Amino acid sequence: MRKIDLKREKDRIIGFIRDQLESAGLNDLIVGISGGIDSAITAALCVEAIGREKVHGFLLPYRLSNAASLEDGKAVAIHLRLNSEIIDISPMVDAYIEKYIPDADRLRRGNRMARERMCVLFDQSAKYKGLVAGTGNKSELLTGYVTQHGDGACAFEPLGHLYKTEIFELAKLLKLPDIVITKPPTADLWEEQTDESEMGLTYKTLDEILYVLYEKKQSEKHLIKKGFLQKDINRVIQLYRKSEFKRHLPPQPEME
Amino acid sequence: MRKIDLKREKDRIIGFIRDQLESAGLNDLIVGISGGIDSAITAALCVEAIGREKVHGFLLPYRLSNAASLEDGKAVAIHLRLNSEIIDISPMVDAYIEKYIPDADRLRRGNRMARERMCVLFDQSAKYKGLVAGTGNKSELLTGYVTQHGDGACAFEPLGHLYKTEIFELAKLLKLPDIVITKPPTADLWEEQTDESEMGLTYKTLDEILYVLYEKKQSEKHLIKKGFLQKDINRVIQLYRKSEFKRHLPPQPEME
Repeated sequence: MRKIDLKREKDRIIGFIRDQLESAGLNDLIVGISGGIDSAITAALCVEAIGREKVHGFLLPYRLSNAASLEDGKAVAIHLRLNSEIIDISPMVDAYIEKYIPDADRLRRGNRMARERMCVLFDQSAKYKGLVAGTGNKSELLTGYVTQHGDGACAFEPLGHLYKTEIFELAKLLKLPDIVITKPPTADLWEEQTDESEMGLTYKTLDEILYVLYEKKQSEKHLIKKGFLQKDINRVIQLYRKSEFKRHLPPQPEME
Repeated sequence: MRKIDLKREKDRIIGFIRDQLESAGLNDLIVGISGGIDSAITAALCVEAIGREKVHGFLLPYRLSNAASLEDGKAVAIHLRLNSEIIDISPMVDAYIEKYIPDADRLRRGNRMARERMCVLFDQSAKYKGLVAGTGNKSELLTGYVTQHGDGACAFEPLGHLYKTEIFELAKLLKLPDIVITKPPTADLWEEQTDESEMGLTYKTLDEILYVLYEKKQSEKHLIKKGFLQKDINRVIQLYRKSEFKRHLPPQPEME
C-alpha cells in the first residue's frame, strides 16, 4: 500500500475545502453526520477549514435506523462543538414506502432513505447558501458502494482520494471520538449491515487490491504472488466494473 | 445555426438507447412524463427503440402543479399507448415542506419537487430493473437550467446533444400531440413559470449564442456582427459559467 504523510494530507484537504468555497463564491458548508467515521472526518476538516460557525451539521435518522448511529452522530457534533440539527426523515420516506411500495425490499428502502437525506442536505444548502460537503472515500467510490443521488451526492469530495484504511489513520490523527473509530463501518441501510460483510472483503484486502490494480496498474498475477486470493480479486474487479456508471456523467449521443 | 438531418438523428438516438440498455445488461426503461416536449420525445423514442411493453411512464404531479401539465402528460401516454402510472408526490414533498421548511421560497419548493420525482423514478427503476431515461436537452444542460439530482438525474441523456429549437423540430417529425409542441416550455416549478421568461431569452436566441460561443468557439464580436445584443450574450455567458459545476462530477483533492 502507498505511504502518505497524513499530517500534510490533512492540510491539503483543508486548503482544498477553502478553494471549493472560494470558487463557488460561498461561505458555508453543510455536512450530513451519520455517526460514521467518514462524515466525522469531513465535519472535523470543514470546521478546521472555515470555523465552526459556518459549518451546519445534520443528523438525519429514520425511525428504524440503528439508534446507536444517532447517538454516535450526536457525540461527533458535541466533540466538534458543531451547530447541528436533527431532521427525522421518517415522515417523507414512509409517505412513499407505505403508500406506494409497501412490499419493497430492504435495498430499495435503504436507497430511498439515502436519497431522502440528499434531498434534505441539498435543500438546506439553499437555505444557508452553502455547499454540501461529500463524505465519500476512494474505496467506496471505486467499488460504487454508494447510493446514486443519495450519499454519493455532494458539491465536492474532500476524502475522495483516500482509501478507507487511510481514513482510519486520519481519524486517529484528528483525535475523533473512539466509538467512531472502532465500530465496524456500515452504510446503515438496514440493521446488522456492515460494509465488510456485505462486500465479502475486509477493507485492508479491498484497498490493497484496488491500489494495485487501478492505481499502480499492475496485473492480477502480481496480487496472486503477494498472497491475495483469486476470488477476492475477482470480487473487486466485479465491483469496480459494475459501478463504472456511477463514476461518469450520463452519456449522450455524440454528434457526427 | 447548424443544420442536422433529423430523420437520421432520430435513428441514431434509437440506436444509442438500445446500446445503453445492452451495456447495462437491462431490458426496461423508466421515463418521467411531465406533459412537456422533452419527456414526450424521450418516451416516444424509447418506445420506438424497445417497444412499449418495456417502457414504464410515470406522471408525477404535485397538488399545486398546473393541472394542464398532468392532462398533457396523460395525452402523451395515450398517444404513445404507454404503460403509465400516476404517483402523487404531494405526501412526500409536504411531509418535508410543511414540517421542516414552511417558509421556504418557491425555488426551494420547486427543487424539492424535482428531487422527489428523481427519488420515485430511481426507485421504480430498481423495481423494473431498468434505466431511467433522461429528458435533458443541450440548451438546458449548457445553461444549467435543471435541478441537480432532480430532473437532471438519469442513466443517459438521449436528447442531451440537441438544442431546444431542434427538439421542437424533432417533435414535429415524431408527430407528437399538438399541445405538447405548441405550449411554452416550462420547468413547472411554480405557476406561470416559463423557461423563456425566467431566462430572459428566447430559445432561438439562446441556442444560437450557445452554438456560436461554445460549439463553434467563435468570439462575442462574431455574435454582435450578426445582430445579437451584448446583454443577451452576457446573460448566456453568465448562465453557462454559473452552471459549470452541474456538468462535472464533484471534484476531489488530487494526490501529489
